[in-house]
Amino acid sequence: MFSFDVLARDPDTRARSGVIHTAHGAIETPVFMPVGTQASVKALTPDDVKCTGAEIILANTYHLYLRPGADVIAEFGGLHEFMRWDRPLMTDSGGFQVFSLGSALRDGVGKIGDIFPDEDPRRAERPLGDMLAKIDEEGVTFKSHLDGSAHRFTPAHSIKVQSQLGADFILAFDECTSPLDDFAYTRRAMERTHRWAARSWDAYAQFGRDYQTLFGIVQGGAYRELREDSARFISSLPFRAYSIGGSLGKSKRDMHQILEWTLPLLPDEKPRHLLGIGEIDDVFEAVQRGIDMFDCVSPTRWARNGSLLIHPAASNVGAEEKLSRRGRLHIYNAQFERDPQPIDDTCDCYTCRNFSRAYLHHLFRARELVVYRLASIHNLRFMFRLMRRIREAIAAGRFLELKAEFE
Amino acid sequence: MFSFDVLARDPDTRARSGVIHTAHGAIETPVFMPVGTQASVKALTPDDVKCTGAEIILANTYHLYLRPGADVIAEFGGLHEFMRWDRPLMTDSGGFQVFSLGSALRDGVGKIGDIFPDEDPRRAERPLGDMLAKIDEEGVTFKSHLDGSAHRFTPAHSIKVQSQLGADFILAFDECTSPLDDFAYTRRAMERTHRWAARSWDAYAQFGRDYQTLFGIVQGGAYRELREDSARFISSLPFRAYSIGGSLGKSKRDMHQILEWTLPLLPDEKPRHLLGIGEIDDVFEAVQRGIDMFDCVSPTRWARNGSLLIHPAASNVGAEEKLSRRGRLHIYNAQFERDPQPIDDTCDCYTCRNFSRAYLHHLFRARELVVYRLASIHNLRFMFRLMRRIREAIAAGRFLELKAEFE
Repeated sequence: MFSFDVLARDPDTRARSGVIHTAHGAIETPVFMPVGTQASVKALTPDDVKCTGAEIILANTYHLYLRPGADVIAEFGGLHEFMRWDRPLMTDSGGFQVFSLGSALRDGVGKIGDIFPDEDPRRAERPLGDMLAKIDEEGVTFKSHLDGSAHRFTPAHSIKVQSQLGADFILAFDECTSPLDDFAYTRRAMERTHRWAARSWDAYAQFGRDYQTLFGIVQGGAYRELREDSARFISSLPFRAYSIGGSLGKSKRDMHQILEWTLPLLPDEKPRHLLGIGEIDDVFEAVQRGIDMFDCVSPTRWARNGSLLIHPAASNVGAEEKLSRRGRLHIYNAQFERDPQPIDDTCDCYTCRNFSRAYLHHLFRARELVVYRLASIHNLRFMFRLMRRIREAIAAGRFLELKAEFE
Repeated sequence: MFSFDVLARDPDTRARSGVIHTAHGAIETPVFMPVGTQASVKALTPDDVKCTGAEIILANTYHLYLRPGADVIAEFGGLHEFMRWDRPLMTDSGGFQVFSLGSALRDGVGKIGDIFPDEDPRRAERPLGDMLAKIDEEGVTFKSHLDGSAHRFTPAHSIKVQSQLGADFILAFDECTSPLDDFAYTRRAMERTHRWAARSWDAYAQFGRDYQTLFGIVQGGAYRELREDSARFISSLPFRAYSIGGSLGKSKRDMHQILEWTLPLLPDEKPRHLLGIGEIDDVFEAVQRGIDMFDCVSPTRWARNGSLLIHPAASNVGAEEKLSRRGRLHIYNAQFERDPQPIDDTCDCYTCRNFSRAYLHHLFRARELVVYRLASIHNLRFMFRLMRRIREAIAAGRFLELKAEFE
């Protein structure tokens, strides 16, 4: 059912384009996966997501396990039918969220709003001390952020839950360490994650659905020795694809180095997924180093905050957006109050074809619900047009030329 | 440009069906107008609204005057172009909201959330004492609920603003009294409203756009003598259509009586609009007494609260909804957690064709933004299918038979 074919390689970099075949259709790589944490890409229907050009959605096992519950989704035959998305789906293992309850809160790394971007921000005011996760050799015990109820995840349990959810791509259960963890702890955690990878594989062999593909996950924090160890160990197991997880260091440069240490040690013929990354410059840097798959909440979260992606070549980009190198227009700004232009005059999305910046500005100021949908459609459409251009540039041997356009 | 033709009359009641022609297309009556307070029917795009079957939207002058400002909308050529709705539009005069700042708050009638349903409910906690409106013979001075800035509306100013907004149907500026106002005050206010009606007409003759039609408004509270006086006076002016405004008493029975006193005194060949009413039983009672047009936030507000309209003939209506006579299903209820059925198996809306009660239940519990759109689509589609059945029943001479189905 699963296959990955590299169709083109950029002559100047490690960038490659290809196609992954699944039981629910093909995915062209490099691919961006919008995040549907709670079985919904925020503010959008599956039809909306499809219209932006998405080929695959990533959903979060931790959230769906707690609500509505994997058994509810299993009654519907799985997540595809429950949320009515007939294309490929990926689920993560739950590890990231579970450990975020532990180390990230302990260390003050990340805000609750980053860990649970989909929750009401007012929840951030709740005392978090009793939400810590406790880890042991077999798995992790944690309390629900929703109601404080106690739960336990083991590698086998994560795989069973992911089998109930029924996504095409599922992920081995791992411990996600914090950027503040030292070498010794990061190594201990990585070694445990390696043992869990083997247990995840065994559970997958037993419980995985025929069409599901289990991704191995590389850990090791920002330590070269550990990343190399982890890449070697994980690629020694029979996974058909890999995710790069855990702490990616404290700067973008750290992330680039981690990719440079890790990717050459992974089998070239298998897809590589970079967990949780999706800013424009990061996408270029990661593709350049050989990443095939991305997932990130940023484009849709930016959209809900009125931060709209614009192409540097759009003729209606103001000096401010050009200078920012961020390529985002802040639609709340007063300068857009009477602006009759679309967000981006090079964009073919539903929002740009129909609505002015002035109207969107008004809707944001008035907190009208519809605007979160319109902005999300635009930002996702931007991402999928970008990914298509990246694939075309790789095929044409001019990836670095395209990258320079966005710098 | 404006014409109204009565096409059928129910033999047993005063119900009639017909068609209103406008520069932006025809409207079949009795018609329900969804409310787009701030140039947006909450959670929906104009395309969404059109797909539910809407022929006309009502927007609120008070809100649009304050934000984004009538001059901004005028720069776009008017509300049609600004919000991208190419069918008929109606605006109210601003009077209801302005006076709501005064008497309704003074008397504790209505909550701020009812008066400004579109605002963040947390605003209700703001002290309201300084928001009162002050009335004089020429108009009313009030403070913005957004920023406390001072503003003044007169009949001429309301008409000028409505001309800038450019809706097809506009409304004379009136004072909306409270159910707690006594006979003497209600009469004084009504007489002033009558003088304002004449001034509104003069301003309309001067500033109104060619294609705009000014509706006169009948006041008089719950007092028979005043309602009759007002109906006679307002119909003596050259308005081509009428709205029934002001306090409709303290019970549904009061409202029925007010309609029975008022409607026979209005010219039979002109359309009659009942302001702000739209529950199912009210629609039947008002159509029965000769009302042609309705506007109401209830169907979309219910939708956002998870209260979904269901047809009594749907085979998947539970006993609870059948007994309630409200004909609404509360999707938050735990009974829907695993329910694979659509909201209403007689409904042809996008939501019912695609999604289960279980998924909607999950989305509401998880506060996923998309569900406010899905629920609003359903409730509006319900209203437009109901209105079509009412028109067909009138044409077939069996209006009371249809009404009995919903009792």
